[in-house]
Amino acid sequence: MRCAVVAVGTELLLGQIVDTNSSWMGEQLAANGIDSLIQYKVGDNQKRIVDVLRAALRDADAVIMCGGLGPTHDDLTREAIAEVMGVPLEMHDDLADVIRQIFESRGRRMPDNNLQQAMVPRGAEPIRQTRGTAPGLVCPVGDKVVYAVPGVPHEMHDMVERVILPDLRRRGGDTSVIVSRVIRTWGESESGLNERLDGVIAELESAGNPTLAFLASGWEGLKVRLTAKGPTADAARTLIATWQAKVEEHVGDFVFGYDTDTMESVVLDRLRHRGWSLGLAESVTGGLVSGRLTAIPGASETLRGSIVSYASDVKFEVLGVPEGPVVSERAAIAMADGARRVLGADVGLSLTGVAGPAEQDGQPVGTLWVGIALPGATTTATVFRMPGQRDQMRQMSVISALDLLRRRLS
Amino acid sequence: MRCAVVAVGTELLLGQIVDTNSSWMGEQLAANGIDSLIQYKVGDNQKRIVDVLRAALRDADAVIMCGGLGPTHDDLTREAIAEVMGVPLEMHDDLADVIRQIFESRGRRMPDNNLQQAMVPRGAEPIRQTRGTAPGLVCPVGDKVVYAVPGVPHEMHDMVERVILPDLRRRGGDTSVIVSRVIRTWGESESGLNERLDGVIAELESAGNPTLAFLASGWEGLKVRLTAKGPTADAARTLIATWQAKVEEHVGDFVFGYDTDTMESVVLDRLRHRGWSLGLAESVTGGLVSGRLTAIPGASETLRGSIVSYASDVKFEVLGVPEGPVVSERAAIAMADGARRVLGADVGLSLTGVAGPAEQDGQPVGTLWVGIALPGATTTATVFRMPGQRDQMRQMSVISALDLLRRRLS
Repeated sequence: MRCAVVAVGTELLLGQIVDTNSSWMGEQLAANGIDSLIQYKVGDNQKRIVDVLRAALRDADAVIMCGGLGPTHDDLTREAIAEVMGVPLEMHDDLADVIRQIFESRGRRMPDNNLQQAMVPRGAEPIRQTRGTAPGLVCPVGDKVVYAVPGVPHEMHDMVERVILPDLRRRGGDTSVIVSRVIRTWGESESGLNERLDGVIAELESAGNPTLAFLASGWEGLKVRLTAKGPTADAARTLIATWQAKVEEHVGDFVFGYDTDTMESVVLDRLRHRGWSLGLAESVTGGLVSGRLTAIPGASETLRGSIVSYASDVKFEVLGVPEGPVVSERAAIAMADGARRVLGADVGLSLTGVAGPAEQDGQPVGTLWVGIALPGATTTATVFRMPGQRDQMRQMSVISALDLLRRRLS
Repeated sequence: MRCAVVAVGTELLLGQIVDTNSSWMGEQLAANGIDSLIQYKVGDNQKRIVDVLRAALRDADAVIMCGGLGPTHDDLTREAIAEVMGVPLEMHDDLADVIRQIFESRGRRMPDNNLQQAMVPRGAEPIRQTRGTAPGLVCPVGDKVVYAVPGVPHEMHDMVERVILPDLRRRGGDTSVIVSRVIRTWGESESGLNERLDGVIAELESAGNPTLAFLASGWEGLKVRLTAKGPTADAARTLIATWQAKVEEHVGDFVFGYDTDTMESVVLDRLRHRGWSLGLAESVTGGLVSGRLTAIPGASETLRGSIVSYASDVKFEVLGVPEGPVVSERAAIAMADGARRVLGADVGLSLTGVAGPAEQDGQPVGTLWVGIALPGATTTATVFRMPGQRDQMRQMSVISALDLLRRRLS
């Protein structure tokens, strides 16, 4: 199966919105073993949409159209597909009822133009809407197929996962089940992981199943994704488990979690497991560590808070750091101890460093000291040299400090 | 001029990287009055690149190709353009020298395959590289033109701004100068701004110059961009000034800055102007306000720090908040006073609220109390009802609290 994606919307061409939908679809298609042939962005212009759809259908076996299913006169995807199919649009009363009910359940009257969303090209099958008013479409065009989904990401994700990916795989004669696993790492570069996994990658390439991909994700870490096909979900899972073990044999030391884990969820879990609370003292990261930990619902069970001691005085007066250079081992240790004491926490984590643009205390831009105070242990500090400009340095500092704490908690 | 964009790279089709380059180009083309016809993403496959380029040239007057100019065997943009032009690639010794010098200046030996980057289709003009090793290309194809630029954003931006946009406008017979101005707002929705600017937009549409566009940018605020053409830069600037005044007559109350201003840079500027330092007490935002302010180099002159009092105990013990509900006017006021006192700051700003998933202290998800303590004034607190899920609620809280402080400082 060769699949094309057409994202519809003038706002995409004008750069007012970045088209992340197509990227998400590309990732899903790859994970399902479907070839991504090409992706298009086209404006809200029926002739141009028709031209692009015809061009896409020449080379691809399937086309997914995303966007242009709204209720306004700018929403032309339905009309364009009907034109390419050479059929009229027909009102589906059952779809109209669903749309009416959605408005009623929100206590609002349905504007008449929303009925446009219940129009379906003759011969096409609607994809039931579960999250918004717009149904999707499955439209046969000769022996090929055109799908249409709304541009609202969570509506689109639902229809692609629920209907389109299974349909594509069935059409491709693929009766296998796909299982994937994301192994989340920190502490080694992409080329470094690649080198360590050289042998495994060669073995995988000759085996052909599962596949392995790297996804660099900034301060979310570097992901290694294994995707396996099997006759059953169990068979695919067994295959994944075998290869996951081989991957971890070589890079296990850098693995901090799996699938939806994040560095902050893992650190909070480890703390919760030990029944320890956490207090932070942040300087160079200015509250970003705390900001990320508190993105996790339930963080308040574990995180007491953070003293963002941006001014040196605040380090001295609030945290009890001794006067002297504040980007130093001594300051990082005193900050970690101070965070623990002032915030009444079991564990103290501190960050002090130089994000630039200028050096500080004779330390170059990129210097990061991380202090860790644990119950019943001597407080220590570790130095890192972070890459990048101010923003990157700060982001890398956040995940590096959390990773250091994670390692100390294992 | 009708322009197409072709982004080249298998990693784009696989969703491993989101294609933000094309969006950026779309924005630039629009700002320069050039019609964006269509955008493509295609993999590293010469036949497919050639097919897409031919299709793009059928309908567009100009095509910008982005990516595929690197030194590896996967980089095929040069070869594809030469195939479409029907010409051979030729080595440009002067380009090779520049590449060699770049490596030498970094103390590294140039791998031989980097010489591939000095190959130019016969009849094409190179675009001098100023930031990376890959030169760009300007390739005439009949009476049309194909440009090629590297996929590295800062290299691409440089070549598009320096060479391609002026060349496109010259080819389009456009001798005018483009000036644009971004008016940054907060506190009114896009449809609300639209309604307030109804008359101005109608006037602008009949005048045709300047153009006005809205760009919703999350917690960066909502931007109104005016783009004017004039025979000279001065003429365009005068036009912008006239219309900016008309826009501000209707929405001036929501304007917090212009162009590269951010809410945090504006707040820091106002504080600096008064010679006041700032101390924060954050609960619901967990350090995000502080994290954003410290993204600005030089924030340390003004920002003392933040007490992230996530646990209620920390509010009571560190900030001196009286026992009782912590999402309340009284708590917000005590937190702002506490931040000022504990951090030794002139101004205290506090945030306490409910990000969800569950309600707290009988307050619904979305409740935000912002406290402001200023020198010589009674400390006050203001309540907001924020929209959205946890992440959105927290982000909107950050900009709303900073905006409230900005207004109090004016």
